[in-house]
Amino acid sequence: MFADDYDHRRLNTLSWIRYAAALSDDPVLLLPVGSHEQHGPHLPMGCDAILADAMAVRLAEKLDGLVLPVLSYGYKSQARSGGGEHIPGTISLDGASLTLQVRDILRGIFYHGVRKIVVLNGHAENQWFLTEAIDLALREALPARPDLHLIRCEYWKYTPQSTLEAVFEGLSPRLNPHYVALLETSMMLALKPDLVDMSAMPSDRSGQFPPHDAYPQTGEGVPPSGVLSPVSGASAKKGRRLIRDTVAAMAAGLGEALNE
Amino acid sequence: MFADDYDHRRLNTLSWIRYAAALSDDPVLLLPVGSHEQHGPHLPMGCDAILADAMAVRLAEKLDGLVLPVLSYGYKSQARSGGGEHIPGTISLDGASLTLQVRDILRGIFYHGVRKIVVLNGHAENQWFLTEAIDLALREALPARPDLHLIRCEYWKYTPQSTLEAVFEGLSPRLNPHYVALLETSMMLALKPDLVDMSAMPSDRSGQFPPHDAYPQTGEGVPPSGVLSPVSGASAKKGRRLIRDTVAAMAAGLGEALNE
Amino acid sequence: MFADDYDHRRLNTLSWIRYAAALSDDPVLLLPVGSHEQHGPHLPMGCDAILADAMAVRLAEKLDGLVLPVLSYGYKSQARSGGGEHIPGTISLDGASLTLQVRDILRGIFYHGVRKIVVLNGHAENQWFLTEAIDLALREALPARPDLHLIRCEYWKYTPQSTLEAVFEGLSPRLNPHYVALLETSMMLALKPDLVDMSAMPSDRSGQFPPHDAYPQTGEGVPPSGVLSPVSGASAKKGRRLIRDTVAAMAAGLGEALNE
Amino acid sequence: MFADDYDHRRLNTLSWIRYAAALSDDPVLLLPVGSHEQHGPHLPMGCDAILADAMAVRLAEKLDGLVLPVLSYGYKSQARSGGGEHIPGTISLDGASLTLQVRDILRGIFYHGVRKIVVLNGHAENQWFLTEAIDLALREALPARPDLHLIRCEYWKYTPQSTLEAVFEGLSPRLNPHYVALLETSMMLALKPDLVDMSAMPSDRSGQFPPHDAYPQTGEGVPPSGVLSPVSGASAKKGRRLIRDTVAAMAAGLGEALNE
Amino acid sequence: MFADDYDHRRLNTLSWIRYAAALSDDPVLLLPVGSHEQHGPHLPMGCDAILADAMAVRLAEKLDGLVLPVLSYGYKSQARSGGGEHIPGTISLDGASLTLQVRDILRGIFYHGVRKIVVLNGHAENQWFLTEAIDLALREALPARPDLHLIRCEYWKYTPQSTLEAVFEGLSPRLNPHYVALLETSMMLALKPDLVDMSAMPSDRSGQFPPHDAYPQTGEGVPPSGVLSPVSGASAKKGRRLIRDTVAAMAAGLGEALNE
Amino acid sequence: MFADDYDHRRLNTLSWIRYAAALSDDPVLLLPVGSHEQHGPHLPMGCDAILADAMAVRLAEKLDGLVLPVLSYGYKSQARSGGGEHIPGTISLDGASLTLQVRDILRGIFYHGVRKIVVLNGHAENQWFLTEAIDLALREALPARPDLHLIRCEYWKYTPQSTLEAVFEGLSPRLNPHYVALLETSMMLALKPDLVDMSAMPSDRSGQFPPHDAYPQTGEGVPPSGVLSPVSGASAKKGRRLIRDTVAAMAAGLGEALNE
Repeated sequence: MFADDYDHRRLNTLSWIRYAAALSDDPVLLLPVGSHEQHGPHLPMGCDAILADAMAVRLAEKLDGLVLPVLSYGYKSQARSGGGEHIPGTISLDGASLTLQVRDILRGIFYHGVRKIVVLNGHAENQWFLTEAIDLALREALPARPDLHLIRCEYWKYTPQSTLEAVFEGLSPRLNPHYVALLETSMMLALKPDLVDMSAMPSDRSGQFPPHDAYPQTGEGVPPSGVLSPVSGASAKKGRRLIRDTVAAMAAGLGEALNE
Repeated sequence: MFADDYDHRRLNTLSWIRYAAALSDDPVLLLPVGSHEQHGPHLPMGCDAILADAMAVRLAEKLDGLVLPVLSYGYKSQARSGGGEHIPGTISLDGASLTLQVRDILRGIFYHGVRKIVVLNGHAENQWFLTEAIDLALREALPARPDLHLIRCEYWKYTPQSTLEAVFEGLSPRLNPHYVALLETSMMLALKPDLVDMSAMPSDRSGQFPPHDAYPQTGEGVPPSGVLSPVSGASAKKGRRLIRDTVAAMAAGLGEALNE
Repeated sequence: MFADDYDHRRLNTLSWIRYAAALSDDPVLLLPVGSHEQHGPHLPMGCDAILADAMAVRLAEKLDGLVLPVLSYGYKSQARSGGGEHIPGTISLDGASLTLQVRDILRGIFYHGVRKIVVLNGHAENQWFLTEAIDLALREALPARPDLHLIRCEYWKYTPQSTLEAVFEGLSPRLNPHYVALLETSMMLALKPDLVDMSAMPSDRSGQFPPHDAYPQTGEGVPPSGVLSPVSGASAKKGRRLIRDTVAAMAAGLGEALNE
Repeated sequence: MFADDYDHRRLNTLSWIRYAAALSDDPVLLLPVGSHEQHGPHLPMGCDAILADAMAVRLAEKLDGLVLPVLSYGYKSQARSGGGEHIPGTISLDGASLTLQVRDILRGIFYHGVRKIVVLNGHAENQWFLTEAIDLALREALPARPDLHLIRCEYWKYTPQSTLEAVFEGLSPRLNPHYVALLETSMMLALKPDLVDMSAMPSDRSGQFPPHDAYPQTGEGVPPSGVLSPVSGASAKKGRRLIRDTVAAMAAGLGEALNE
Repeated sequence: MFADDYDHRRLNTLSWIRYAAALSDDPVLLLPVGSHEQHGPHLPMGCDAILADAMAVRLAEKLDGLVLPVLSYGYKSQARSGGGEHIPGTISLDGASLTLQVRDILRGIFYHGVRKIVVLNGHAENQWFLTEAIDLALREALPARPDLHLIRCEYWKYTPQSTLEAVFEGLSPRLNPHYVALLETSMMLALKPDLVDMSAMPSDRSGQFPPHDAYPQTGEGVPPSGVLSPVSGASAKKGRRLIRDTVAAMAAGLGEALNE
Repeated sequence: MFADDYDHRRLNTLSWIRYAAALSDDPVLLLPVGSHEQHGPHLPMGCDAILADAMAVRLAEKLDGLVLPVLSYGYKSQARSGGGEHIPGTISLDGASLTLQVRDILRGIFYHGVRKIVVLNGHAENQWFLTEAIDLALREALPARPDLHLIRCEYWKYTPQSTLEAVFEGLSPRLNPHYVALLETSMMLALKPDLVDMSAMPSDRSGQFPPHDAYPQTGEGVPPSGVLSPVSGASAKKGRRLIRDTVAAMAAGLGEALNE
């Protein structure tokens, strides 16, 4: 599923000898984190992991970095951001399970002497448990490793505003998270068109949520398709642009931050 | 990296709608579990995950099952089974982190109504933490789900003795774990030849260990290459036979067990 | 510090006999959650707890509910939302510690037969650990208590847009979290003017952050005062309006949600 | 609820700037720990937290210290010491939840450079989980902070015997924990008379318990009111004396211990 | 070390077949809990475990019960009750480790259908972590097992006052925990005289402690021998009486409680 | 139950003064770990603990070491190695509970300055949770204690092949774990003949298991007696030889390893 032209950037394709050699260049290591979450009737459940991985390998290419194996399971889907756990298919981790797993992975690469690390998040619900993992790993390591420099980044935060405006073709004067379905569908069409079922594209209206969150989640406010915003207008071309511009912006922003 | 002809068996390529439809057939779900571990100078560090995944998708094909995203990080490498943590490259989880992650994934698929599950292990060190995960998940779920039927399987336990004898061509009258390097190298040559560096094939003698384990691990007894047994004689042809025969035996054994 | 005209709404002022009597009315219980976090040179460190509690008691008055003792310690301050942990004064909990505490409190009130609960959050960083606490508590309780109805609410999400526009007097055509300092200062002037030091009001420019978060936090981008946005223009009058309008909107929104 | 003349001693009323300034005097920090527990039909459920906080602020006044926000939830009520969990109203934490919370708070103030700390306990059942929190925090911190000096104190252990004898007016030649209701009622009458319902004062006989504890707790041996000992004779005057004498004794004892 | 005439009461001497047969009589199961703690220069470090086990087997004889293997490690020694952790020799568990272990053991015997259980504690510091273990085990089990009846008992609470007065021969008009050394020494002389070194009997004065506890523990107030109270006058004869009378009182009290 | 001629090697028979004196000789400390597990109708449930302890004290005699109190509860019995949890009598710990307990004990003896430690395992299922305990303890301690040297040893791995061949008298050309019942029965006859019920010796055929493990465990493949392999031919004489030869081999192997 993840095969592409970037395999040489993936840590799991390297022997330890090659990795050991690469370490002498003080490389950036990138940990993409996804989820296994329903993404509507037209997109595969691995969508967030596929996108996080795709961003990571392209970013690694620009930063001359290496990419750790993607985490394929994330924190629990929430109604307003992912549709919620009530739709069959989503498989999620408890917050502590995700946090401990990431803390351990960070501990492992600290031990190898890695200094510059990007946790590249592709699933909104993961953010705070990744933050906690980074804090726990640093608390343990910092006394002996004051040189550590970690970044946690939700990749979509780096998509330029001008790119979004172009992608939405004036349909949306006020961009917000409710428009993510068009973005994800476009990027999946660019990356894995065979995994997108255009015939199943939903035509639901957007999800409607109050300013609070209610539990247990009943699916109230979530369209039957599980898709929270319109997807019409999605295209591979838009996807390519989104990926290209987002990666370029990340490369500039993170590259500068890591080399300070 | 995992792209192959079995993508239609992978849960992360399906939409939730297709998964929901598939659930009505009471399918077997398979969770491959690997590691990120040094495998010598000639094999990629993702070896265990690649092999566990490869076995799982082929087994799913025969059992008409579906495969969950592989777990790419496993329990800590031990000197006698994997060379140990002292070689840079290996990235491992604490036992509790691995256990909690697997418990959560099982909880998730129990919730979908899945009844038949195979945890397919590709890294010897994982075994007991997977066992614990299954026990914790069942303790929680069994009162309401007496129909659950889980299997934990180290795939190499199903490789037929006759296959092993053929593969070793009489070189080894007494087969044992010390011969795993030739098996893994052969299977990787069959599956991912571009990830095997034949020119880096080590010629160390086998690892030498006392009947106990000593800590902290210093690498004593582990050959400098990290490879614990001879690899000469490995071939793609042997690898294809190993995979084919092991999958066939698993399909027969697990298929019968799950349909009881 | 919390003394005001709403003590009769606070659970810790009631005897168990009065609480037991109140339970027969199927009351809403509100759990305000704050933090102990630097809020600049002019505001007290208990600011988030004071505001969450103030919102909760006023909301309880309207919903005829009862308020649990406020949680005075929250999750770790982040640079872009709270200034970060590097400024002396902030005292924070690990994510798991906060989650377990809230899970236990929820378990306790479930046991009393309470059915309608609002977790009223006053510290942005708490949100996901509260979400996890609610999920853990419900997982345990739901089988025997299908009647449970919980809401998690960040109070500022209910402040009407029209109120914000009035408060900012045209200074801010595009409202966003960077303007929270003026809101909090105004509300503190309305509630606890003696705890606000007008003479120490900072005149720093706003915090400046990239789209990612970097760790360990060094305070980069955070103004020396710890205040992330302008406070000039804050007034008790604006604070009173903010509180009044926010509570009214919450009462309408949550009241309806809980009585469905 | 906690408003009184001691607000200037409370850490949550200070800005971080004032706190940072105060730190240069090497101040004692006091963490009062209470509970949310039934205290009979006449006393509020926040009784232990109110008393622990009241002792802490008065002690801080004498030691020139600062008081952390009180912990309002404690460990599970036991029949012989608090009446037990069967009476509706009590809300308790698991031992681990309380321990982790206190460990985190201690870690936070260690980080600020605080050296002298008093954990002032107002709920008997908390004692051992506070002890464990202190041990865990010190295990982590001591290697880098050999200067740390912590004290855990149940405040009633410092009430002078002569004061107790005066308070009981010869009614009780052998003082013991069974007489705590009169003490707590008197001190609440002194501190928060409006929260004491004299008309609901119980006239039960004392609790009767065997030398062991039985579980699940059924309330056996606990009077119907939940009050474990006679309250008749309680008065605000006695309460004022109890508070004054206890604080004076603590100030002498702890002051000396912390300045060694 | 534990060999005596009571082996037939010990669960670890029975085959599962005999245990299964015994279960049909609805027997009491007893779990003795000790410690590995310094007990002065004259007593062995296993003292608390030896005494808890000795009490348990004798009590089992009277109640026709069975005794689980004693827990040989307990919670951390405290200065005033056990001398503290600073004296080399004591080996202690974190609170959570002790709690989880006991919870698991209780879960195990619940699963066998056992209904009546006594946790017989021989180390004061264990009490609250045993209480928590019982609570956690019951929370999990009670919904399906409303018949469970557990008792936690510190054995010394059942020593009759008249026995204590006889043992101290008028030396001590006001008995208190400070006199435990004479009791333990006498009982060890009765049970394991070869493990008591009369020549090393200390003649220190009693430990002297303030009403609070200070951490880190420095040994202040603890006599150099680690013995907290006088041992002179200890004798095997007194020990036999202490054991006999304590067991008789427990048999009466617990027997009645368990048969309610 | 554990009384024998080796009591002077047991740490719980020593006073702290004697232990402190012994520490100056840099002694090996041995921690035997057993289980409480069904061992068929003829053997006591404490079998693994008795054997681990017996090996440990004899090994201590040869290495001039000291033996910690045996752990009497182990990890969950598995069908193929111990018969499984479905047979009443077995009492097991969760993996984390066992791991934390052993980690704490190791921490304790590290604190005493002990440098050489053998964790001597008598229950196959414990192995990986002991490995994890050692890793967690070393991670915490190694920075300040680079001198630590730990060994984990399953004692049966040291039984010489020649001894096994002699014991089986040519009955078994291919020795494997399925023959453990004869070994354990023989050793118990040598050590504790009164705890072996020769009249209950089972005559079941061996357990029959597929190459995988199925859960929940139903006892499938496990003989009704719970004994997994033939016991006929067991004798005290064979047991004495097994113990003697195994201890001698361990003394040589571990002695050399620890003195490197």
